[in-house]
Amino acid sequence: MKTDKIITLEHGAGGEKSRALVGKLILKYLKNNILAQLDDAAAIVVRSKKIAFTTDSYVVNPVFFDGGNIGDIAVCGTVNDLSVKGAEAKYISLGLIIEEGFPVSDLEKILKSVAARAKEAGVIIVTGDTKVVERGAADKIFINTSGIGEIIKEMSPRNIRAGDAIIVSGFLGGHGMAIMNARHNLGLKGLRSDVAPLKKLARAVLPDARMMRDLTRGGLTSALTEIAQSSSYDIEIDEQKIPLDSAVKAAAALLGSDPLQSANEGKLVCFVPADRAAKILKIMRAQKYGKNSAVVGRVLGTKTKKVFIKTSLGVRRELKEREGGNLPRLC
Amino acid sequence: MKTDKIITLEHGAGGEKSRALVGKLILKYLKNNILAQLDDAAAIVVRSKKIAFTTDSYVVNPVFFDGGNIGDIAVCGTVNDLSVKGAEAKYISLGLIIEEGFPVSDLEKILKSVAARAKEAGVIIVTGDTKVVERGAADKIFINTSGIGEIIKEMSPRNIRAGDAIIVSGFLGGHGMAIMNARHNLGLKGLRSDVAPLKKLARAVLPDARMMRDLTRGGLTSALTEIAQSSSYDIEIDEQKIPLDSAVKAAAALLGSDPLQSANEGKLVCFVPADRAAKILKIMRAQKYGKNSAVVGRVLGTKTKKVFIKTSLGVRRELKEREGGNLPRLC
Repeated sequence: MKTDKIITLEHGAGGEKSRALVGKLILKYLKNNILAQLDDAAAIVVRSKKIAFTTDSYVVNPVFFDGGNIGDIAVCGTVNDLSVKGAEAKYISLGLIIEEGFPVSDLEKILKSVAARAKEAGVIIVTGDTKVVERGAADKIFINTSGIGEIIKEMSPRNIRAGDAIIVSGFLGGHGMAIMNARHNLGLKGLRSDVAPLKKLARAVLPDARMMRDLTRGGLTSALTEIAQSSSYDIEIDEQKIPLDSAVKAAAALLGSDPLQSANEGKLVCFVPADRAAKILKIMRAQKYGKNSAVVGRVLGTKTKKVFIKTSLGVRRELKEREGGNLPRLC
Repeated sequence: MKTDKIITLEHGAGGEKSRALVGKLILKYLKNNILAQLDDAAAIVVRSKKIAFTTDSYVVNPVFFDGGNIGDIAVCGTVNDLSVKGAEAKYISLGLIIEEGFPVSDLEKILKSVAARAKEAGVIIVTGDTKVVERGAADKIFINTSGIGEIIKEMSPRNIRAGDAIIVSGFLGGHGMAIMNARHNLGLKGLRSDVAPLKKLARAVLPDARMMRDLTRGGLTSALTEIAQSSSYDIEIDEQKIPLDSAVKAAAALLGSDPLQSANEGKLVCFVPADRAAKILKIMRAQKYGKNSAVVGRVLGTKTKKVFIKTSLGVRRELKEREGGNLPRLC
């Protein structure tokens, strides 16, 4: 592996070069007692009978962007999916699909990010798989992570009640805007992916929360649309209360892009009983990734599965997803 | 979804079309109470504290081949990894990366195979993810499956002892040869992928087995090479005892390809105490996917981490992986 500067098909063909890639390069960054066995499957211990299981493939383009790279979102995204389900994220799998010719140095940067985010989130990579495809058969690198967590208190949209307060954990739309900026070389300043593991934040909110969801593709708009559909309740948010930083606002105006539909990789929305909203907001703001949390809306008493937004002009309209408003390959 | 004949970028962008793809097409084939919740993560119950966790990405080219398609191997491969670890495979995740323009009818065929294999193996698809990338950014479709199983008796190469008998579960090399035949339109007759779920076979062997491994990329050669390395024991196999069917033999001779290094997707090798080999062979031969099982070798008393083969001419030589002998994208 020492002398290989690019990934070749043999690194993925299951023979000696494959074992060198895994045994020397991947274990260099991700080693732990379980992964080091390099067995077909990892044997892991879980302390609760009910566990959370999730999967996501990451195909973000470009692979490197301001604020992180595909390795950061591959770990954080899966940790966040487990965390908002009400589980303590514990074990992560790492499936790599690499295009022939991908620089080994870039792979190392990605593995460093995977290792750093796993450490930050208190999870370990216990099993993995590496495939290499010919030039042109994939775009640089795709990563799948699946994850297992121990459920502490299961979150579900079925738990939502009329009157619940809706809190988002900070400035929205940062990831999507940073990717657009990087992809099209726009050169806009101050745009940075918000990618972050929300394990601690979600854990802090868990005792009081009725449900949580992380805001990813489709942003706040898609998350609330889905929650309204699965809970049947109508939802209302107040445009003026939505935390948006100045760089995202400027980029959104310039690009004609909706920050509420823009992707995030380190934000969640939570639904909490109204009388506990102030307390929970304080708890969230004390967390590293919750400093700019804000109450943005509430659950209505009606059940037509719709989301409404009160605009800054005082108009109330239905919040709908724009088809074509979501870029592909944001995560 | 009814009118869409090809997959578009919007099917993967997280909005309404994405939900239609998942809610109408994918649930049509894979529906169960857990998957139907379409939550960030699945909540599942496990009955043992020790569980097996595995992941594999499938990038096989072509996607359809004689004996199956990428959906068959995506389920069977992961079920088999759990089974040979000594676990009862239970829950599977399904991560799709689809190239824009992929025919919906082909996706349906693949989902049908996923459903059929999951049913056959007694596992359920509990969580999933779908990404769509632009034309040219992936080759048709890639699938990641991760799996969780309840460990019954953990298999490990550390359990191997000198004198153990080595049994393979049937004719070798079928998958790799079938893929080559399909990929290069060779038109050879009788080549068919052996893709199959080995859950029942592995379960039948488990009480007596010291360890098992499924034979995938790199075939028997890579599996034994890895086992010799991780157990430290030398291994000897007898070429004349290795089950090979006539079509694979003919294709191997014609193509100059080594059937022992050719991929399988429905075969395992197991290591058992010599005095129980006859009994176990009988058990294996009574199983649907074990009819042509055979004892092919034994563990030696020496510890130099090497694999030897006695050829049909009576010569004993070291069995080594040929670099370049493994094709890419066999699974």
